[in-house]
Amino acid sequence: MLVIKAGGGKGLDTEAVVADVADLVKQGQQVVLVHGGSHETNVISEQLGHPPRFVTSVSGHSSRYTDRETLEIFVMVTAGKINKLLVERLQQLGVNAVGLSGIDGRLLEGNRKDHLRIVEDGKRKILRGEYSGVIEQVNVSLLTLLLGAGYMPVVAPNAISYESEALNVDGDRAAAAIAAALKAETLLILTNVPGVLRDVNDENSLITQIPQAQAEDVLDRYAEGRMKRKVLGAAEALRDGVGQVIIADGRVASPVSQALSGRGTVIK
Amino acid sequence: MLVIKAGGGKGLDTEAVVADVADLVKQGQQVVLVHGGSHETNVISEQLGHPPRFVTSVSGHSSRYTDRETLEIFVMVTAGKINKLLVERLQQLGVNAVGLSGIDGRLLEGNRKDHLRIVEDGKRKILRGEYSGVIEQVNVSLLTLLLGAGYMPVVAPNAISYESEALNVDGDRAAAAIAAALKAETLLILTNVPGVLRDVNDENSLITQIPQAQAEDVLDRYAEGRMKRKVLGAAEALRDGVGQVIIADGRVASPVSQALSGRGTVIK
Repeated sequence: MLVIKAGGGKGLDTEAVVADVADLVKQGQQVVLVHGGSHETNVISEQLGHPPRFVTSVSGHSSRYTDRETLEIFVMVTAGKINKLLVERLQQLGVNAVGLSGIDGRLLEGNRKDHLRIVEDGKRKILRGEYSGVIEQVNVSLLTLLLGAGYMPVVAPNAISYESEALNVDGDRAAAAIAAALKAETLLILTNVPGVLRDVNDENSLITQIPQAQAEDVLDRYAEGRMKRKVLGAAEALRDGVGQVIIADGRVASPVSQALSGRGTVIK
Repeated sequence: MLVIKAGGGKGLDTEAVVADVADLVKQGQQVVLVHGGSHETNVISEQLGHPPRFVTSVSGHSSRYTDRETLEIFVMVTAGKINKLLVERLQQLGVNAVGLSGIDGRLLEGNRKDHLRIVEDGKRKILRGEYSGVIEQVNVSLLTLLLGAGYMPVVAPNAISYESEALNVDGDRAAAAIAAALKAETLLILTNVPGVLRDVNDENSLITQIPQAQAEDVLDRYAEGRMKRKVLGAAEALRDGVGQVIIADGRVASPVSQALSGRGTVIK
């Protein structure tokens, strides 16, 4: 079982990813593809007159404020446009893909984070009406039902709260949760850098191997921003039974096969 | 088995529909819900700067021109926003809904209509680049797989062509095709009028019963525009083994139970 996270940010060659995935599926590999959608959501939010609002958390991170309107746009873009156009493309390549969001069949369930603690104009504030969350449960039986019948699940980064509210979730963490729930041999996270870098400004400073025991340490020393979340997700996935996590370049030709043959950062 | 078509046009009380559906599902009724989305697609297309274009066919009907950009917006709105928010609401009411588009698992497959024959400024023209179609195949096994595992399918009005292109399809016809494929006892089409009317301007002129043999005749005499497509879909569904088709008011309280207890137009 291979769980792949691809897309969401800019620069990824989605066409190369799906072509590569199609080859693997035809060779009999079971694959679950998880995608993102932040960038396209931002573009469409702007066009719809509800531009994304980024806030600074008390811990100093920048994050998106997902009010209900933003959530609905996020769901529309990720579970609608991105998900279905990926499914269409995979179908063109002969893969019988089925798109799902985390809302469908309670595929991805977790706690809603209904407020953000932010710093604005030097003051600490609480921003209410947030619709994001962290996945705690994966409905594995829905995935195995589809996989067992020969379908390839394509999953949008949404979840459902215990109170059944749709939520915005991080795609990398969603992929990690799915990989852990399926006890996948490999979780492959494709991104727009070569992998985990010693120096974020130097693409030649790739860390090729990280032993599982050192993942947290590497996280503290090298990972920043979004990469931090990827490595955090990787560490969680490994702890929960995933064989290996590969963080690799999604901008190259045959990105999936290249990553599986050892390019990128392998954490295990 | 009950297949319900609800939503897409204005005026329908979606909240009343889903509440009613939830009650039926809890009583053990197997339901497939099919929705539309033309109205909301028009609104969002306008907002995105790609307003809908309506053309007049050579036979005098007004229809939407679905170019690739419109198709992508239609898929985004129907399979994303409308579908997932319906699934969210059903989950809140305790129904384990799973949303699908006709693209997923080739659920709804048919021939692409790639051009429209139109009349513009008094001249006949061929408008190319159309992405709509008529459903010819339903992947029943995907629906029964989900139904058998306790999920309620919620289906967006998209299809996939034999060449694997996403298509815009009519929601009423999609519901009729699904009902026929499942040999449903009842296909219920909820709309924003009381049913098939003798006089389209008089809501008191409801035709309560139409024998199957007379459906085509009624179609010719009374049905206009969208109602024509509903009755056409009904006639096809009955021919293909559906027990009865009810066309009923979706604007009332408990619209599903009221229709099932005989309100509206019953065709059988």
